[in-house]
Amino acid sequence: MAWARWGSHPWLVLLCVYAWGHPKSLDQREDVRNCSISPPYLPVTAVNTTAQLTALRQQMYIHNLSAYIVPDTDAHMSEYIGEYDQRRAWITGFTGSAGVAVVTMGKASLWTDSRYWTQAERQMDCNWELHKEVGTTPIVTWLLTEIPVGARVGVDPFLFSINSWESYAKALQVSDRELLSIPVNLVDLVWGSERPPVPSEPIYALQEAFTGSTWQEKVAGIRSQMQKHLEAPTAVLLSALDETAWLFNLRGSDIPYNPFFYSYTLLTDSSIRLFANKSRFSSETLQYLNSGCTGPLCVQVEDYSQVSGSVQAYASGDVKIWIGTSYTSYGLYELIPKEKLIEDTYSPVMVTKAVKNSKEQTLLRASHVRDAVAVIRYLVWLEKNVPQGTVDEFSGAEQLEKFRGEEEFFSGSSFETISASGLNAALAHYSPTRELHRKLSSDEIYLLDSGGQYWDGTTDVTRTVHWGTPSAFQKEAYTRVLIGNIDLSRLVFPAATSGRMVEAFARKALWDVGLNYGHGTGHGIGNFLCVHEWPVGFQSSNIAMAKGMFTSIEPGYYLDGEFGIRLEDVALVVEAKTKYPGTYLTFEVVSLVPYDRNLIDVSLLSSEQLQYLNRYYQIIREKVGPELQRRQLQEEFSWLQRHTEPLTARAGPTTSLAPLVTVSALAILGWSV
Amino acid sequence: MAWARWGSHPWLVLLCVYAWGHPKSLDQREDVRNCSISPPYLPVTAVNTTAQLTALRQQMYIHNLSAYIVPDTDAHMSEYIGEYDQRRAWITGFTGSAGVAVVTMGKASLWTDSRYWTQAERQMDCNWELHKEVGTTPIVTWLLTEIPVGARVGVDPFLFSINSWESYAKALQVSDRELLSIPVNLVDLVWGSERPPVPSEPIYALQEAFTGSTWQEKVAGIRSQMQKHLEAPTAVLLSALDETAWLFNLRGSDIPYNPFFYSYTLLTDSSIRLFANKSRFSSETLQYLNSGCTGPLCVQVEDYSQVSGSVQAYASGDVKIWIGTSYTSYGLYELIPKEKLIEDTYSPVMVTKAVKNSKEQTLLRASHVRDAVAVIRYLVWLEKNVPQGTVDEFSGAEQLEKFRGEEEFFSGSSFETISASGLNAALAHYSPTRELHRKLSSDEIYLLDSGGQYWDGTTDVTRTVHWGTPSAFQKEAYTRVLIGNIDLSRLVFPAATSGRMVEAFARKALWDVGLNYGHGTGHGIGNFLCVHEWPVGFQSSNIAMAKGMFTSIEPGYYLDGEFGIRLEDVALVVEAKTKYPGTYLTFEVVSLVPYDRNLIDVSLLSSEQLQYLNRYYQIIREKVGPELQRRQLQEEFSWLQRHTEPLTARAGPTTSLAPLVTVSALAILGWSV
Repeated sequence: MAWARWGSHPWLVLLCVYAWGHPKSLDQREDVRNCSISPPYLPVTAVNTTAQLTALRQQMYIHNLSAYIVPDTDAHMSEYIGEYDQRRAWITGFTGSAGVAVVTMGKASLWTDSRYWTQAERQMDCNWELHKEVGTTPIVTWLLTEIPVGARVGVDPFLFSINSWESYAKALQVSDRELLSIPVNLVDLVWGSERPPVPSEPIYALQEAFTGSTWQEKVAGIRSQMQKHLEAPTAVLLSALDETAWLFNLRGSDIPYNPFFYSYTLLTDSSIRLFANKSRFSSETLQYLNSGCTGPLCVQVEDYSQVSGSVQAYASGDVKIWIGTSYTSYGLYELIPKEKLIEDTYSPVMVTKAVKNSKEQTLLRASHVRDAVAVIRYLVWLEKNVPQGTVDEFSGAEQLEKFRGEEEFFSGSSFETISASGLNAALAHYSPTRELHRKLSSDEIYLLDSGGQYWDGTTDVTRTVHWGTPSAFQKEAYTRVLIGNIDLSRLVFPAATSGRMVEAFARKALWDVGLNYGHGTGHGIGNFLCVHEWPVGFQSSNIAMAKGMFTSIEPGYYLDGEFGIRLEDVALVVEAKTKYPGTYLTFEVVSLVPYDRNLIDVSLLSSEQLQYLNRYYQIIREKVGPELQRRQLQEEFSWLQRHTEPLTARAGPTTSLAPLVTVSALAILGWSV
Repeated sequence: MAWARWGSHPWLVLLCVYAWGHPKSLDQREDVRNCSISPPYLPVTAVNTTAQLTALRQQMYIHNLSAYIVPDTDAHMSEYIGEYDQRRAWITGFTGSAGVAVVTMGKASLWTDSRYWTQAERQMDCNWELHKEVGTTPIVTWLLTEIPVGARVGVDPFLFSINSWESYAKALQVSDRELLSIPVNLVDLVWGSERPPVPSEPIYALQEAFTGSTWQEKVAGIRSQMQKHLEAPTAVLLSALDETAWLFNLRGSDIPYNPFFYSYTLLTDSSIRLFANKSRFSSETLQYLNSGCTGPLCVQVEDYSQVSGSVQAYASGDVKIWIGTSYTSYGLYELIPKEKLIEDTYSPVMVTKAVKNSKEQTLLRASHVRDAVAVIRYLVWLEKNVPQGTVDEFSGAEQLEKFRGEEEFFSGSSFETISASGLNAALAHYSPTRELHRKLSSDEIYLLDSGGQYWDGTTDVTRTVHWGTPSAFQKEAYTRVLIGNIDLSRLVFPAATSGRMVEAFARKALWDVGLNYGHGTGHGIGNFLCVHEWPVGFQSSNIAMAKGMFTSIEPGYYLDGEFGIRLEDVALVVEAKTKYPGTYLTFEVVSLVPYDRNLIDVSLLSSEQLQYLNRYYQIIREKVGPELQRRQLQEEFSWLQRHTEPLTARAGPTTSLAPLVTVSALAILGWSV
């Protein structure tokens, strides 16, 4: 799990209620602003935004606008955005990943969720009101009190999804205000030379060893879907950055944690148009895109800035353009006449990419073996160093990145590491900083949610550990989270079942006793692509489960002010063998890190759950053990053996003395997933 | 479960694939038409529709239409429709409950699902093509091949839901055809004197003993919701027949199986307008609606036919009309300017009605006790008579209705009884007729799905029985269906969870071995109202579960050509007591008929499932036993004791010798739901 932009999803509101239910008064604190006294108190972290607001209001005046909305995304609806796109941060001073700003002639307001309330009070000056809500409705409700009937609200249409635009437009229209599309971004106009430069790092082709198919095969596959489509599309327009990266097996470094580059693709039945800055391609890469090609299989690289003009020109012909509405900006959408659009929630590239072929599966599995080595090295390191009192959340995260950095094909973290001790673990999104962090202790629960980008795959794994004596409640909660993980992982379900229909199996053991968690249960993941790869997962907007998909499975439990637990694995959707014939699926977990035996109350597990867990441990031994030995990581190998010894129903939680007979029994059973 | 119009829901398509996957050639049979020979062969059951088609085409010509669509619903989107509304049956000859007809100048076509293919071939003449598909897409696809660009397709907008209209309109518009709203129904114009008369039976008020609140209290409750609504509605427009029946505690008999009368209600902040034929109200009923009332609490009865004019006139003022889009026809919808509409999926009456107050709960429970008496009497009667070979599916259903008819407050069946023996039980919707039925046998499974309308409540219960020696597979399938019923019934889940998120618990035991069922898992139910009362249930369009709702829980299993199993209970949503504090819910089953011990393989049940089942049996004894004794039904009482004896894990399937000690053990455990 990572968190940056999951904030746009409804369950996050629920999460906030769970995890941060009791905000405290900030009036007495020195690290946050106090705008209710005169003169206002501003901490050193606050940013003076008077000049930028004045400049923005001049632009609003020129465009005859009563209000201007500055959202938190980029033109590709990216989960993480580059510095070049941090408009909301520049205009407000607030750098959190989620939050929408609205400026009127007299006021300036920010809406963000509870994760960021304190940060906003630290970073914003008193030009800004903080609204502790999210979503279109509270923003529009506020606007209606601030601007008169007939007033115009401006937005950059490239920073709004189609749904988001329509939601604002409708709400304003019924109240006789107008939403206005202004294709020139007004913040950019006033940002001027302070704005970070357009990224210019090279765009490169992945080595063939790390790709599931050539880009030519992928293009042919998408074109074949176009030909079979009843509405006969003549083109597919790709807006999400991972769509273009996947299609051409190209990568870049424009976006933190994601190996992407600013781009669009217009794939027609007779041409391939890639919109990106041409100077960023080496001659080898250009040749890779065009060597020995003939007409419809030659990639025309056009400048990124040309996309609007090119799409508009193309749309003037006798064409049908197939789009995924989730990732297409309203700015591009409004350029295409309605009758020339074929609208699906997700583009055919998004849906095709969701199912990994066997080579991609092998690649992703391999990255998880190496990632397990790094995480296990870190857990061993923690076991030795935490009792010394020398590790904190931030230095720990650094150490983990060091271990990951020693793994082959590593290319950086796949999201900001969540390294959280004690009560910080109750904040499901928490990440420590060099300045603000907590010391790790044998007396507290420690939650680690992290992942790596490797050339062969993207990883994401969460383990929760306790080195001392956990409370009975902590053990019960941990074990129920584990049972949820196990029960969903071993579920057998019909092909094409939606994740939404089965995710409650990850919650049932918690529900049984009145516990729950306020976030989603999992998300898709890519091959050196997004750590949250839509549209796979367990939410209502996800597509049905199919063989070859990868999803995380990550139940948790959070007690505000006390501790937090999450156990996250990545799993592959595989065919299940059932007693009676039928097309059934189940999961095969590919994350290979043992759970914390110190936190498991074996008496809560059914014999089937125990059997499943021991089989998983056996697989970890088989897959990670030899790798540790090959690398001569003997201490880690011993640790792995200890931590994957079969658990038995009779034994207590520390089962290092588990009888060997259990291993034999399992072997005799020939138990398989 | 009943089936008439569930056909409009997506899962039915799935069901058809499951249950009727192998249609056989009908060419050789005498009971169905054969239009491929010359002259065509028509069975005696076929209806000559040449005259009505000619007359309809004349009307189409007058209106300059290339096609006319005749759907299968009424102006209230009713599940069951009265004879007066059987337009599709009259124009096609086909009397099945689901099917859409389209007439062009040269062709006539019917689309229906696999339940009705044979019936359509029996009843239609060769004027009609049969299309074995359902949904808007195949109909529009066919239309595009039959009518030219620019052509006009006419419909009666009162017979289309808003969604259905928009789906047709959009699909035709993108292909340059036009959907045209013609408020006068063309079939009615040509139906003439053959058309059944408008219902004229009295509309009556329910006795106070059978209502949860007075109509004045209900009106005040809805008005209070209007006042609290952010968009400030000035009126609620009610189109579904059960909305008006519920609001005023009025009932009628215009619709089969449903105690409703043709009506609309426009409830404004200052008036109450009930649209129904005034002559059908007795002076007492009129007084009931208006005794001692003052202005806003007086019910103005206006003629049913005035609704369009009155709504249009009201909508010309400074008003906001709140509607539920699911049950409002496009005919009324198009009369109201968009900016004066507040659209929710379900009206506030629909949502309020979904939660029963404590009196309504008591009433519904009481009706289930008496209904259990009738069903148990029938099961005892079957046990004696089936071995004699004297019972068939139809005579059995008649006997059941006779038993129900002897119960207090009985007012008819709540849907057409599904009484299905052997392979007929694999057809999940099957109902026998006087002419076509199968004999019940001790060698076959018998499935009974039936319900009653009582003044205090509506019931719906399914039991599957076998009087001989079921196969091992039948017992396994039955037990897995039972486990599904038990596991969903005893599930503990957070308040406001959607049914969709938990319904898979009813499937898991089947999924485990590669089995499944192709229909939904349950539906809401009313107090002497609809047997399928939306929006409660387990489908994605249902609202979240709340304390006080009633839903059926009805997993099943069907083996095409062999047998079928379904176990359906009605359950009340109640608060669950959890170990840790929180607002959690669970179900309390209110159907009180034992399952068939002969079909239960106890070895498949976990100890928790067994405990739950035995506790349920104890409750049946406590609630139904005294009623049987009071009625001096001694044979039935003994039967009940035998069939509710606690099952034990050690004992085999016939546990009539189950040790008494188990009862004591349960009593000691003090086990509760």
